[in-house]
Amino acid sequence: MSRSHLIDRLLAGLPAEAVLTDPDVTVSYAHDMASFCPAGTPAVVVLPRTVEQVQHVMRTATELRVPVVPQGARTGLSGGANAADDCVVLSLTKMDRIIEIDPVDRIAVVEPGVVNAALTRAVNEHGLHYPPDPSSWEMCTIGGNIGTAAGGLCCVKYGVTAEYVLGLDVVLADGRLLSTGRRTAKGVAGYDLTRLFVGSEGSLGIVVRAVLALKPRPPRQLVLAAEFASAGAACDAVCRIMAGGHAPSLLELMDRTTVRAVNDLAHMGLPESTEALLLAAFDTPDPAADLAAVGALCEAAGATQVVPADDTAESELLLQARRLSLNALEAVKGTTMIDDVCVPRTRLGDLLDGVERIAGKYGLTIGVCAHAGDGNTHPTVCFDAADPDEARRARESFDEIMALGLELGGTITGEHGVGVLKKEWLARELGPVGLEMQRAVKQLFDPLGILNPGKLF
Amino acid sequence: MSRSHLIDRLLAGLPAEAVLTDPDVTVSYAHDMASFCPAGTPAVVVLPRTVEQVQHVMRTATELRVPVVPQGARTGLSGGANAADDCVVLSLTKMDRIIEIDPVDRIAVVEPGVVNAALTRAVNEHGLHYPPDPSSWEMCTIGGNIGTAAGGLCCVKYGVTAEYVLGLDVVLADGRLLSTGRRTAKGVAGYDLTRLFVGSEGSLGIVVRAVLALKPRPPRQLVLAAEFASAGAACDAVCRIMAGGHAPSLLELMDRTTVRAVNDLAHMGLPESTEALLLAAFDTPDPAADLAAVGALCEAAGATQVVPADDTAESELLLQARRLSLNALEAVKGTTMIDDVCVPRTRLGDLLDGVERIAGKYGLTIGVCAHAGDGNTHPTVCFDAADPDEARRARESFDEIMALGLELGGTITGEHGVGVLKKEWLARELGPVGLEMQRAVKQLFDPLGILNPGKLF
Repeated sequence: MSRSHLIDRLLAGLPAEAVLTDPDVTVSYAHDMASFCPAGTPAVVVLPRTVEQVQHVMRTATELRVPVVPQGARTGLSGGANAADDCVVLSLTKMDRIIEIDPVDRIAVVEPGVVNAALTRAVNEHGLHYPPDPSSWEMCTIGGNIGTAAGGLCCVKYGVTAEYVLGLDVVLADGRLLSTGRRTAKGVAGYDLTRLFVGSEGSLGIVVRAVLALKPRPPRQLVLAAEFASAGAACDAVCRIMAGGHAPSLLELMDRTTVRAVNDLAHMGLPESTEALLLAAFDTPDPAADLAAVGALCEAAGATQVVPADDTAESELLLQARRLSLNALEAVKGTTMIDDVCVPRTRLGDLLDGVERIAGKYGLTIGVCAHAGDGNTHPTVCFDAADPDEARRARESFDEIMALGLELGGTITGEHGVGVLKKEWLARELGPVGLEMQRAVKQLFDPLGILNPGKLF
Repeated sequence: MSRSHLIDRLLAGLPAEAVLTDPDVTVSYAHDMASFCPAGTPAVVVLPRTVEQVQHVMRTATELRVPVVPQGARTGLSGGANAADDCVVLSLTKMDRIIEIDPVDRIAVVEPGVVNAALTRAVNEHGLHYPPDPSSWEMCTIGGNIGTAAGGLCCVKYGVTAEYVLGLDVVLADGRLLSTGRRTAKGVAGYDLTRLFVGSEGSLGIVVRAVLALKPRPPRQLVLAAEFASAGAACDAVCRIMAGGHAPSLLELMDRTTVRAVNDLAHMGLPESTEALLLAAFDTPDPAADLAAVGALCEAAGATQVVPADDTAESELLLQARRLSLNALEAVKGTTMIDDVCVPRTRLGDLLDGVERIAGKYGLTIGVCAHAGDGNTHPTVCFDAADPDEARRARESFDEIMALGLELGGTITGEHGVGVLKKEWLARELGPVGLEMQRAVKQLFDPLGILNPGKLF
């Protein structure tokens, strides 16, 4: 099959402006934001605007046996959207309509290319709230969020993207259109195929429409910062807060390395003497009372300083510091590998201890920021990519952190997905029966193996 | 294959007391609580106590090509647990251990035979809450709840069983053991097979262990009762409450027929002049304030009377009335068919109008109680099973209600499942592509078709 034949066939069902063929342009669609993930060279990039156009793309790909790599904003951190050689990159970014927002049914119906922040703002205007808030929320798309079951800061109270997907329209590998799920609050008619697609990284079908659940808009959250003399004490505070029945709207941890990196990058004035900074927030009717209770628990766990924000402006500043963490760690040595290990929150302290040990063993700087309330950590290996030995050590330490996560009863990925970055590790986490059944599901939905090949497995 | 050979093979891996062969005993395992659902005669009933014993049963069934029907407490309402002829009934009721409760990780690890109420009470002692509360909660098992993705009164705030299942151990049709999901708060490693099993009515595998998410125990709820001169006005109140951003812990509707039936059965002193009674509850820090706000919305929607309960005892009495609804409706004419149609809550009024029209058309009494906040209604056809013409009209009206639910953008089952009762309707709801993919999933996990045959499809 020649590239020109592929392009001709695609143009039979797509307008010319939806088919990008200039290699200087298409190369910019080759990869997402993950380090060290191989990416191929796409044959062509298509930007459909309708479901019918997506069906045409998939029918063509099936007919010609061409791999298709679906993409949103390419903000992913696992290489899940990286191009395969000679593939069709299927960018959903032009399908960006918010079709419906209903405050009584508390749902939104959207196309996959809608940017998370655009949806968030649109539903806010109706007094509603779409909680999932990955740190790339100003750029990333709902389709990408669905593909990775993306998380964010909100998850400790509101859960991940998966909890908000009620129904999907999916174009299957052969171009047929499948509708899953519902637009009702409840529904148990048949198998839950909706959730099978959520987090499937575009490997089972192309999501072209989603019915999303919304929440009432909560009050603005108020944040507290607590400093600790050790990461272990901060983790102890996390356990006390969760065992105490509290429902913080976020519960985040930044280790010393991360705090200093953020100060270096943005002069935020965070306390440099701290070993671990814990941020807790509440969006309840009386957040000050909740923060006082949580502050007392932090003190009981040995916090050296507890500072509740006075207002939402001060709260926003603390959150901004947290949101800068990954960028700040990237600035330390130029390159980072961002891990995403999630452990039972009772084992969070063990994980942080282990990461420190691993950093020492490999002579590396590894900063940790974490969605501590979920036990979901982002140990971030800082290294100089131009130094081959340091790069090798970075990759080895990265793997050792995942091994530790599994050993502690955790998972190799809490919210970033498997992509190409962790596919060898997926097999280890799933075990032989799990892997076999997952491969069988892939085979069922994509018998020709054309959907995002080389990812997950 | 002879029955005695099957029994011999089962006894090779099960103790004698775990294998019931007396037909007088086994017949009592033939069906669940649904009316009008055919049930076969089991060859044998097994009551394993270990995962290995379940694996032995499934290996034997695969080897001998014998159908297996998994059962919990048989409180289901769709015939999903009804025996097939010459099947092995696999009762999980003896696997009833609560293995672990962890207040920090907020999880429970349980075997499938644990009774819902037993789990609820056990976690309460740790200051925790397991929300799913189907009306059979004193009897039904967690395994059965998982099989049907069971709901209850709590769902408007807390969601259905599916939201609480983090991970499963499942014995596959051929006896292999599959572990799905996680025990962490988050995790996106691979496809979500956990949710595929939830609601699959035992047709894909046998759940032998579950990791369940728990919530902090909320304050006791306070209930308000509001009377309306029409069902439409009550539905309007529901819409105003949900659009107003309120988060009631229950929002239930009983129509006139149901109110009167409950009074007839239990002399509860409910207001007989009402056309629709709405119950709203809050388990928030200040439930009286929330009830006042919701009471005002009820009045704005035309409530003729709004009565907030003074205390939890009064609240409990109102809930008891609601919980008696189905029994009370059964007493009306001796037999009921309980429907489970869920519509977008904006269409709830249309559904109730339609049910009244259908009742008139067929000359039948149809009482409606509803999880109104979810749009999930239980139109309950009351009839005399000894009157063939009335029974025929009952079935026709039942079908007509499902057709109306689909027409209004709803589903044929919000929480009871498909079983044998609604399998013709499932195809209609899913459409040809959906049905084909669902059948393919079934074929993948159960290539010999031995798991709960004749259900769902």
